[in-house]
Formats: sequence, structure tokens, C-alpha cells
Amino acid sequence: MSASTTSTDACNDFHALHHSGTPLLLPNAWDYASAAILVNAGFGAIGTTSLGVAAAHGLRDGQGAARAETVALTRRLARLPCRLTVDIEAGFSTDPGEVAQLAAELAAIGAVGINLEDGRPDGTLASISQQQELIATIKSQVPNLFLNARTDVHWLALDDPQMADTLARVEAYRAAGADGIFVPGLADDDRIRTVVTSTDAPVNILYLPGQHTVGRLAELGVRRISYGSLLFRTAIAATAATALAVARGEPLPEQVPSYVEVNQLAR
Amino acid sequence: MSASTTSTDACNDFHALHHSGTPLLLPNAWDYASAAILVNAGFGAIGTTSLGVAAAHGLRDGQGAARAETVALTRRLARLPCRLTVDIEAGFSTDPGEVAQLAAELAAIGAVGINLEDGRPDGTLASISQQQELIATIKSQVPNLFLNARTDVHWLALDDPQMADTLARVEAYRAAGADGIFVPGLADDDRIRTVVTSTDAPVNILYLPGQHTVGRLAELGVRRISYGSLLFRTAIAATAATALAVARGEPLPEQVPSYVEVNQLAR
Repeated sequence: MSASTTSTDACNDFHALHHSGTPLLLPNAWDYASAAILVNAGFGAIGTTSLGVAAAHGLRDGQGAARAETVALTRRLARLPCRLTVDIEAGFSTDPGEVAQLAAELAAIGAVGINLEDGRPDGTLASISQQQELIATIKSQVPNLFLNARTDVHWLALDDPQMADTLARVEAYRAAGADGIFVPGLADDDRIRTVVTSTDAPVNILYLPGQHTVGRLAELGVRRISYGSLLFRTAIAATAATALAVARGEPLPEQVPSYVEVNQLAR
Repeated sequence: MSASTTSTDACNDFHALHHSGTPLLLPNAWDYASAAILVNAGFGAIGTTSLGVAAAHGLRDGQGAARAETVALTRRLARLPCRLTVDIEAGFSTDPGEVAQLAAELAAIGAVGINLEDGRPDGTLASISQQQELIATIKSQVPNLFLNARTDVHWLALDDPQMADTLARVEAYRAAGADGIFVPGLADDDRIRTVVTSTDAPVNILYLPGQHTVGRLAELGVRRISYGSLLFRTAIAATAATALAVARGEPLPEQVPSYVEVNQLAR
């Protein structure tokens, strides 16, 4: 998809992926190559991981520090033949108008969706009314862009996250215009089912290795499953492990693409 | 090493790593996170991979297209406590003065070395005299910077690469002031030994999985062993494989760092 072909149709198509027979399985990339190899592997929609984008640039995630890097990445990924949704942390600004402007810029580049979180750089949550104003401002500016509203009640290291607070935020963000709801950190089946049945918005869950399967999340009514930073963390783990394996004369991973294959990822 | 502490001492220290009891084993990074995890794994010197840097930005390697990205990466990596040498392809310019200016800029940021190849974007090799002029110009501008002169006689898909041409280039580049010689693509023991014994410069070989071991290359007199793009290619292979494993419900890699651990890579 080139920037010039991004359209209402592309956005509608991405919305529809949240309402098909199976959940949207959305892997998250952090640079052009990671996105390109995921597209080549058959994924038709790609998200970005704010941890990956920040860490790749030597920045901390969730601190609102990676705005320019996020925009630059969006420009690169817009060349790929996939639907692209961009993690913008809390919007890289406390001003709703500025965040809406960013959303409009990303949409103009070719993104069909954004992730917007209510966690703030100091580890607190935005108030519900603040976050509602932010969501409503963005939606008024770019109504077709899929706004996935993330609540960090269960994600931040908050003592005893309350389901009542989660459900209140889900309802409020949906009422403000959110197209989808993302509750990362939600692990057990009962809580996931409770969130899913509380709203008519498609619910997005962060895949947690060892705790979830795609099939079980689908049974629970989850409509979108994100990899979050898993692939990025796996990639850098493989980097260090392979470097040490060469040094130690240990076996190396097989099925690694060739230089020529990787160089052909650029389009 | 911060940019402000880069010094003649740091450069001398990097030169000395090519003349110790064991070869310098030099893993190659493409972004801040890959470099940081390699430093955390114990590697005290890091190179960059031009394929990785280009592909991460959606560019082709060896086309001279990633100059700005290479400088920006050098700024990020200079914050890490390691010796840093930067792959500048053929210099991103056909003008020796411009390439020398880039080398000086990288040295000022904190790099202690560069890799400079004689392959050109069109798949040909620079003439020996052209490459000598380039090397001499750089060395006159930044004499302390370790200039690793790479010859692509065996790397490019040239018909029947001639050892005589390789040896002529090794001698000529050394005479022009190269501090080290890099011959990627050289696989068999006899040829490696021939190059090593032909020059007093430390010889760098690209580690080829299945063909080399660190111990054997050390026995042959190799003084520096590069990973090239191997770690980058391994990382993106792990990315795609893990994405598909989640989709298929297959086992996932173990020993993946946590979100918190990765977020702490930023310094």
C-alpha cells in the first residue's frame, strides 16, 4: 500500500478485520525489515511495538520520547502491501489537538489505525475524562482511522488492578468514539470474558506466551490478538544467543535467510 | 564510552585488539538494542552491518543510500561502553574528500574504526589506484581511526575471483595506509593462509556458518572475525518464525528477555 492509495476503503477493510470469523492476529514490527519479513510470512496487517521502536533508538518506552522515530517508521512501513496500525504510546503530547494532528499525519502517510494508551510517563493513568477528551478529539479529526483505546489498568504495576475501573474505562472510551479496546496484561479467562461481554467494541488482548492460545482467546470472543513486544524481544534474544554460540562453537540457528534474500526486502 | 571520552587512547586500544593472543571476535549490530544486548552479553567491541542498517530502513545495501542512517546510528551507539567500528560501505560518495569528512565526523562522535569496501553500487570494483587514493585521503584526515580496508574480489558475484587480484589489492591498500584488511567471502583454509602470510596487516575474515570455526580461523592467523549480517538475518528469521509459531500453536523460543529488561537497555 502506498501513501497515495490509503483511503477510506483501506480503513474500512481494517475495521472489518475485527469483525470476521476469526480474531485478527496482529504481529508488531519495529523497523522496515521486521515488518517486511512478517508481510512475506503472510501477515496482511501489521502493528508497531512502541517498546521495539523506542529500544531500537536507545529510548525508553512509554516516555513520549519517540514521536519523530514513530513518524519516520510509519513512512517506511507505508510502502509495504499490508494494513498498518501504529502504536503512538499516549500520543507524545498532553495536548489533545497535537495528538489529533499526529493521528492525521499518520493517516495521511498510510496508517489505517493507531493504538492510544491511558498510561502516562510517570506510571499513573490519565483520568477517564481526560482520556475521553483525547479520544473524541482524535476521532473528530480522523474519523475513519481505527482508534484502538488501550487501558493500562492491568499493564502498569498497579497494586490490585480493579476490574470495575477497567470496565468503567472500556465503557467510557467506547462512548468517546474508540473503535476497539485493548487491555494488555489481562491473563485469565474469566476477566477476559467479562471485558468482552461488557462492550460491543472489538476487544484486543496481548498474547502472553504460556498463558494464552489463539484458539482459546477466539473462544472467549477476543477480536484482535497482539504480539506486543514479543517478536522484538525474541529477535534481540536470538541476536545475543547466536553471537555467543559462534564464540563457543555451539550449533547455530538454521533456516536463516541469505544476504541476497534480506537485501531484497527493500521495495 | 561517551563521545567526549573518545580519544587517541580508545583508538589505540582498538588497534591493540587486533594484535592480542586471540582474534578479535566482532559482532555486528544494526540498531541501538542489538548493540546494547551484545554489550550486555560481554562483547567489548561492536561493528555495524551495512546490510542490517540499510534493510532496517527499507534500503538496499551497498548502494550508498544509508549515509544519514549510519551517522545517526553511530550517535546512538557511541553512548554504549564498547569500542565501535562503523561499516560505511564504499563511503557513500565518490569524492575522497567527502568520505574523509564522514570518517572524521564518525570519529568525532566516538567511533574508533571504519570498514571501507572497494565494491561499487554497480557491482564492479574500484580500481586499485582509486581505492588507494580514497584510503590515503581518509588516513591523512583521521590517522588514528582504524581503517579496515575491505576488498570484494571474493564477495561480489564475480566470475572466478583471482587470488592474484586479491593479493595485489591487499598489498596496495596496506601501502596506502590501511590498518587492517578484510576479505569477506574467503572460505577455504589455503586461501585464507595465503592472504594472512602475504601481509603484515591484521586480516579480517567473515565468519561463514558451517565453513569456519573461531578456533580454526585463529590457527590460520586471522586477527579479526566478523559476523557480518549473520546476527541481523538470524534476528529477522526468529521474528517471522515466532510470529508463525504463535499462529500455529507451536512451541516458542525460551529465554526471551522481559519487557522491563529490554526497556532498561536504554542508557
